[in-house]
Amino acid sequence: MLNGELGNSLLHSTFIIQHSSFNIHHSTFIIDSKMNCTKCKTKAVIGLPRHNAAFCKGCFNGFVHDQVARAIKSEKMFGKDDRILVAVSGGKDSLALWDILLKLGYRADALYVHLGIGAYSEQSHAKVLKFAEAAAASHRAKLHLHTVEQEAGAGIKELAQLIHRPTCSTCGTIKRYQFNRVAIEQHYDVMATGHNLDDEAARLLGNVLHWQEEYLDKQGPSLPASVEGFAKKVKPLYRLSERELAAYAVLNRIDYIVEECPMAKGSKMLQYKEVLNRLETESPGTKQTFYWGFLEKQRKKQPTATTMTEKDRAVLHPCASCSQPTTAEVCSYCKMMARAKTHAS
Amino acid sequence: MLNGELGNSLLHSTFIIQHSSFNIHHSTFIIDSKMNCTKCKTKAVIGLPRHNAAFCKGCFNGFVHDQVARAIKSEKMFGKDDRILVAVSGGKDSLALWDILLKLGYRADALYVHLGIGAYSEQSHAKVLKFAEAAAASHRAKLHLHTVEQEAGAGIKELAQLIHRPTCSTCGTIKRYQFNRVAIEQHYDVMATGHNLDDEAARLLGNVLHWQEEYLDKQGPSLPASVEGFAKKVKPLYRLSERELAAYAVLNRIDYIVEECPMAKGSKMLQYKEVLNRLETESPGTKQTFYWGFLEKQRKKQPTATTMTEKDRAVLHPCASCSQPTTAEVCSYCKMMARAKTHAS
Repeated sequence: MLNGELGNSLLHSTFIIQHSSFNIHHSTFIIDSKMNCTKCKTKAVIGLPRHNAAFCKGCFNGFVHDQVARAIKSEKMFGKDDRILVAVSGGKDSLALWDILLKLGYRADALYVHLGIGAYSEQSHAKVLKFAEAAAASHRAKLHLHTVEQEAGAGIKELAQLIHRPTCSTCGTIKRYQFNRVAIEQHYDVMATGHNLDDEAARLLGNVLHWQEEYLDKQGPSLPASVEGFAKKVKPLYRLSERELAAYAVLNRIDYIVEECPMAKGSKMLQYKEVLNRLETESPGTKQTFYWGFLEKQRKKQPTATTMTEKDRAVLHPCASCSQPTTAEVCSYCKMMARAKTHAS
Repeated sequence: MLNGELGNSLLHSTFIIQHSSFNIHHSTFIIDSKMNCTKCKTKAVIGLPRHNAAFCKGCFNGFVHDQVARAIKSEKMFGKDDRILVAVSGGKDSLALWDILLKLGYRADALYVHLGIGAYSEQSHAKVLKFAEAAAASHRAKLHLHTVEQEAGAGIKELAQLIHRPTCSTCGTIKRYQFNRVAIEQHYDVMATGHNLDDEAARLLGNVLHWQEEYLDKQGPSLPASVEGFAKKVKPLYRLSERELAAYAVLNRIDYIVEECPMAKGSKMLQYKEVLNRLETESPGTKQTFYWGFLEKQRKKQPTATTMTEKDRAVLHPCASCSQPTTAEVCSYCKMMARAKTHAS
């Protein structure tokens, strides 16, 4: 049980010191002691400009849980009997997601992929273990682990150098593959990731700036298991911002790794987040209007979604090496591992 | 005839001092004396990162003229026999547009709407008169003038206050109305505005962030004269950036008003331009990919464009007061003027 209210000054200083990398704006983040909770009228701990509201800790937790419950229901993500595999990284979003799903009474286990990025991976692994032992154990939730170094013989950085590919795309391929593998092998009904509103709005901005129609079609918070061997994928946090999830983690004493991945510095996604935050400060609700408006627009042209699944079925078949679905003879993960083994030997 | 090369240091200092409001980045704007012109190999005066090129003054002017000629041709804007009415404000874009069209041999007159914004309007009017007398007169081009105060009895600021509407939307209604009126009354074939790549990309970003489908459909660089009483509208500068047009104006000694309109401070459009400039610095070509990619996408779904014109025809009819096309009984300009007269009396 997490108990005790964080004092205003503690909460304030925690955010200011720890969250510079999120570009969360001081003025909208700190507790305004003049504000009262919109729901229960006690002293508020956080203001939410885009909802024109402020909440005390209890009502804020209620708000967060409600947003996740609405996401699950409206996007038909999963039910109480489904077994969910949460992809956890040790960051605020994925740990908050695991925490919220367990508190909402869902059967949620998790998978952590140890990438082998020196101290960063050690710290994030420690945060995941700590959360799993304390909070998840009381709900009888299980933590799976995959260690890149064990299978590939090298951490993600060395592996990417070895096969001459950018680190972030190598990492993406490995994570997608391993999450899908564990979900299928362990018979989970659905895989959940901690992507929040900021992540989805930034990704949408990137796709829109380049008008990548194919990616635009696939950018929903609930992707069906289009073919045998592909797990259903959902993003239950798409209605909550990065700032709201940071506040949720701090208020509920979820100990998470604050630093961004050292490999992601200067990435396009961080740039898109920055400019969206700039616009959000001037016009609260910009990100929400942008991403939710997009989803609304996609819902109206439903036929494309059906076509997409059909298209997947038409082009995907089992990988000759590992049997996971792929468009090629051998899937990109198996190719990568084969190249890594050739180069290492 | 404009003659003489601007020295590097003069050009440099002119840009740095005068263009802070455009958020043009120093590092990409100044003349790098180590660069040579991509075309003729003499010393370059400007580098264009998004084209991976650098040009001397002569080749840069050639590049600018070529971009405008390509815009006119590819979007079927007008021919050599057409009479064009250029909307001039005294700013770099509209004066550069008038200059370029005349130099390319087109029959281009202009209209200046005097908004009555104190010293700002006086200065911009003076710049337009100066350009018209010197450059346009030698091409026998004519300058039309409409003075808001003469017709409405007040400048734009007081008028907006009088009728309780935002200044920028009042100004937009008046400009659109007057340009269309003069174009139709004086039998111009087409109306040209100085909107550049930055303007169009910023407007597109605003429309995309709010998914305003109706506006998205109308955001092309060439809008046909859909109904009787509506002039055809074109934007021949959509292939050139704000920075390129500022350089063109300075290099060709076009004396323009550098300040943004004082009413536009903090406007959404300026915010959108700022964030796009931020992304452009990191990834040259972002604005071009975004806007041109959008146009390409629109071209593919041609049927909508036809439907749009048909839709216009179906809903528009002559205003009961002035006969310009409107969707209402009386057009918004006539309503505005009627309200202004009621409140003033």
